[in-house]
Amino acid sequence: MDIKQYVIDKASLARAAARKMSIIDTNTKNRALNAMAEALIKNQDIIISANSKDMENGKKNGTSEAMLDRLLLNEKRIKEISNSLKDVALLKDPIGKVDRMWKIENGLQIGQIKVPLGVIGMIYESRPNVTVDAAALCIKSGNCVILRGGSDAINSNIALSNIITEAAISSGLPKGCIQLLEVTDREAVNVMMKLNRYIDVLIPRGGASLINNVVKNASVPVIQTGVGNCHIFVDESADFKIAKDIIINAKVQRPGVCNALETLLIHESISEKFLPELKKVLDDNKVKIKGCIKTKNILPNIELASEDDWKNEYLDLILAVKIVSSIDESIDHIYKYGTKHSEAIITNDYNNSQKFLNEVDAAAVYVNASTRFTDGSQFGFGAEIGISTQKLHARGPMALENLTTIKSIIYGQGQIRK
Amino acid sequence: MDIKQYVIDKASLARAAARKMSIIDTNTKNRALNAMAEALIKNQDIIISANSKDMENGKKNGTSEAMLDRLLLNEKRIKEISNSLKDVALLKDPIGKVDRMWKIENGLQIGQIKVPLGVIGMIYESRPNVTVDAAALCIKSGNCVILRGGSDAINSNIALSNIITEAAISSGLPKGCIQLLEVTDREAVNVMMKLNRYIDVLIPRGGASLINNVVKNASVPVIQTGVGNCHIFVDESADFKIAKDIIINAKVQRPGVCNALETLLIHESISEKFLPELKKVLDDNKVKIKGCIKTKNILPNIELASEDDWKNEYLDLILAVKIVSSIDESIDHIYKYGTKHSEAIITNDYNNSQKFLNEVDAAAVYVNASTRFTDGSQFGFGAEIGISTQKLHARGPMALENLTTIKSIIYGQGQIRK
Repeated sequence: MDIKQYVIDKASLARAAARKMSIIDTNTKNRALNAMAEALIKNQDIIISANSKDMENGKKNGTSEAMLDRLLLNEKRIKEISNSLKDVALLKDPIGKVDRMWKIENGLQIGQIKVPLGVIGMIYESRPNVTVDAAALCIKSGNCVILRGGSDAINSNIALSNIITEAAISSGLPKGCIQLLEVTDREAVNVMMKLNRYIDVLIPRGGASLINNVVKNASVPVIQTGVGNCHIFVDESADFKIAKDIIINAKVQRPGVCNALETLLIHESISEKFLPELKKVLDDNKVKIKGCIKTKNILPNIELASEDDWKNEYLDLILAVKIVSSIDESIDHIYKYGTKHSEAIITNDYNNSQKFLNEVDAAAVYVNASTRFTDGSQFGFGAEIGISTQKLHARGPMALENLTTIKSIIYGQGQIRK
Repeated sequence: MDIKQYVIDKASLARAAARKMSIIDTNTKNRALNAMAEALIKNQDIIISANSKDMENGKKNGTSEAMLDRLLLNEKRIKEISNSLKDVALLKDPIGKVDRMWKIENGLQIGQIKVPLGVIGMIYESRPNVTVDAAALCIKSGNCVILRGGSDAINSNIALSNIITEAAISSGLPKGCIQLLEVTDREAVNVMMKLNRYIDVLIPRGGASLINNVVKNASVPVIQTGVGNCHIFVDESADFKIAKDIIINAKVQRPGVCNALETLLIHESISEKFLPELKKVLDDNKVKIKGCIKTKNILPNIELASEDDWKNEYLDLILAVKIVSSIDESIDHIYKYGTKHSEAIITNDYNNSQKFLNEVDAAAVYVNASTRFTDGSQFGFGAEIGISTQKLHARGPMALENLTTIKSIIYGQGQIRK
């Protein structure tokens, strides 16, 4: 099989479909999304049977229990995926909105209207629900999508994409609007990354190595999602109860995600009083501490942190702890080691809250709240396609409107440039 | 000289300066811009003397008159460059504007505030005024800039950047906020393109080969500017006077720029009447026609166009002309050969005007106006850093606010995620 030609064929079909998708009305898109939702329920046996092949392969390959759980599809989960499609149908269509319109001195009327990006390439790992979620958001925003999931979930992905694609096309969407690459060779990704003529943007979602590979090697523009080495700084004026609640929430509620807490910074002046209190609740929640030397002086039984611990995204019940002498030192530490994802200060000092908000450079900066809120649904966007950790185009949780671009439309009466 | 280390040193200095720049107030930035403007006038002899070296080298190397004119700096042009700095000082500072702010159900208040991108890498050719213009826009938007101009203008660029950098730093801006790469080896660009840790975005400005090189090889996010194969479609209901005025303006006023007309599409039903009229004014303006076979049947003395003529950005007094049988054929042609820059329809038919605006995919789509208006100043943005021909982050003329990103700031009272 000629993988390069296979990918190019799919991409050029997507390009042609994108032209049709861009002018399809909201009602048709919503009808398609609801039909996709129903088709998933109607064909759940097919999905579960395909998924059981992936599960078997996973067990054979010694995949961890946690990963197997991410892979699993059952009736309940298919119902959830189906419902999320219906939710996307209910979201406001971003396409066609005129962001602003103005007249210039010669009478030309200039408007900036939201239009689809065109063809979006999604490159992702393991969880098969991404196949459906990404397709839904791309369709609703008038885009076409080329999906490239991981080999772990290939049988599930093929079943899901066949079912939703058929429903979408029966509902009047153009052939090629949703396409899964059914080959899992690396070569397919390599080809995708260079297809500037056919693909407008790549969105990689997954582990650091997947994302780095795409960022490094793609000539197609990339929206980088991902890594979160998130910090909380407990300032000297912090309310201890609020601080402990937020730390436990940010570290424990879902340790494996990018907006979870990784390093805690504590102001020196409260460390002797606060740390023993904190240790107790961390122990209750089975969180292991790796601390700086000053922390170890207060909590002698903990492990000493190394330089690597300040850089690590543990994604696990481990917390790095460092005592700092000032808010400036906390900001310096975050500047040096942070990944510009989500950072928080716990404080009751007005000036320090403003200083932290102003000076910390990250997608989301919090005062007295958990970093776990960096999420499209939590922010009220209804759904998200990922969390951008880059500065171009989108930053933070990406909503439907981040899958659009603008077109300037100009109404004239014969104006020429002087 | 170790070019790689040289570029990394500059870039890491820029990274450090970016942190300081991001919190500098508008007054300081404006003071710096005005000081830069004055310094250029005060030091114009130095600039003119450096420029004369570039001019001499250019003449020795057989540079064309047109290119030499682009390179030339004299008192009048330095005055213009100086004035443009003062104009940038008068523009509204985009930084700190809260685009929107809202409360979610648990009481968290979420705001999205405009912040600088950080470090911008400008890669450009020939015209030395870009050195100053780009620096001014980057500074005003709170960014640091690394400038990499072409070898043709290296002496002028060094003089200009030394003068403005000194004025900027004396006015309180951080060391490293403006830096010119004083080496013109290709290697310097190759290094720049991979410095994701230090540079947030690259903006290449220049010819197609420069831009393609950056798009293909950069791992740093790129805003693509550039190539414009622009079309005008004269519909059957077009007012002939308006059509001729707009065509001449779009083709002749400044043929060497990206928003100039390259291919004219004419509806079949008016071609026999319109083309001879048009030929006359094109002849008056020394514009050479290369036409399709149907055009040649009407105007026997013109040259026959080849497939390449539909693709060409002539940037010269040459116009490709094609007769089409319908508006759909015109849109198909633009879809196939256009570069998504600026496209226009001349019509008096309401439905066709709407159809063209809706279905043509380009940064700017015009009804009854010249494509030459695709420009930051013309659009009323005050200044532009380039015209984006990509869909990510910015599309069309890029203003100051396109040099910013957002940061989400979240005010809480102890909220944790359920």
